[in-house]
Amino acid sequence: MELTGYQNLTSRRLDMTFAALADPTRRAILARLALGEAPVNELATPFAMSQPAISKHLKVLERAGLISRDRDAQRRLSRLEAKPLAEATEWLADYRKFWERSLARLDDLLVDLQKPKKKKRKHKSKKH
Amino acid sequence: MELTGYQNLTSRRLDMTFAALADPTRRAILARLALGEAPVNELATPFAMSQPAISKHLKVLERAGLISRDRDAQRRLSRLEAKPLAEATEWLADYRKFWERSLARLDDLLVDLQKPKKKKRKHKSKKH
Repeated sequence: MELTGYQNLTSRRLDMTFAALADPTRRAILARLALGEAPVNELATPFAMSQPAISKHLKVLERAGLISRDRDAQRRLSRLEAKPLAEATEWLADYRKFWERSLARLDDLLVDLQKPKKKKRKHKSKKH
Repeated sequence: MELTGYQNLTSRRLDMTFAALADPTRRAILARLALGEAPVNELATPFAMSQPAISKHLKVLERAGLISRDRDAQRRLSRLEAKPLAEATEWLADYRKFWERSLARLDDLLVDLQKPKKKKRKHKSKKH
């Protein structure tokens, strides 16, 4: 990993993408839109939320570039946009090596911890 | 993609992880810590920021579980933690198929757009 990441050009976009992803309703909306475009009333259905509340979330997603919306007021379909998700995935991909190594070390540690347990004998026996 | 994601157990953790990642200083701190553990003064060096300002960012990262810190007040080393990054990567991985397909479609579209340009003739000629 290079420290050039300190002045990343896509930095502002990543800020908005990650901020938009930091909410369970917005993530659920994206999950729904990955299946295909949808109007706001359909997006509001699974939530105990008013359409204006959902519209607010859609605005956050739209500003982050994660969705686009029809200008046509009649249906106003929302659809998922690929680029910000690709950029966020790319940013996290740099860390894959790190966490794969760390989790492998954790696995080894757990295996090591289990080994001596089998050999160990408790001083207290059941009969007493 | 399944709609079971609507009730995701790791949802609260993902909220905190993505919110913590929505800041360029915090992402830069994580990039530095991927190289190895570091004390707060070393983490503050590349930024035009006071140590208390950096400490605030470290607290956000620690609460999100993205870093852990020594309890020993002397050096107080920070280190990167693997699990939240792995979970965020996993969440985004569900969308890889979607954006790979979308970006491929965009590539096709761009190729298509370039083709007719060569053949197309403008009705208006330069001589008029």
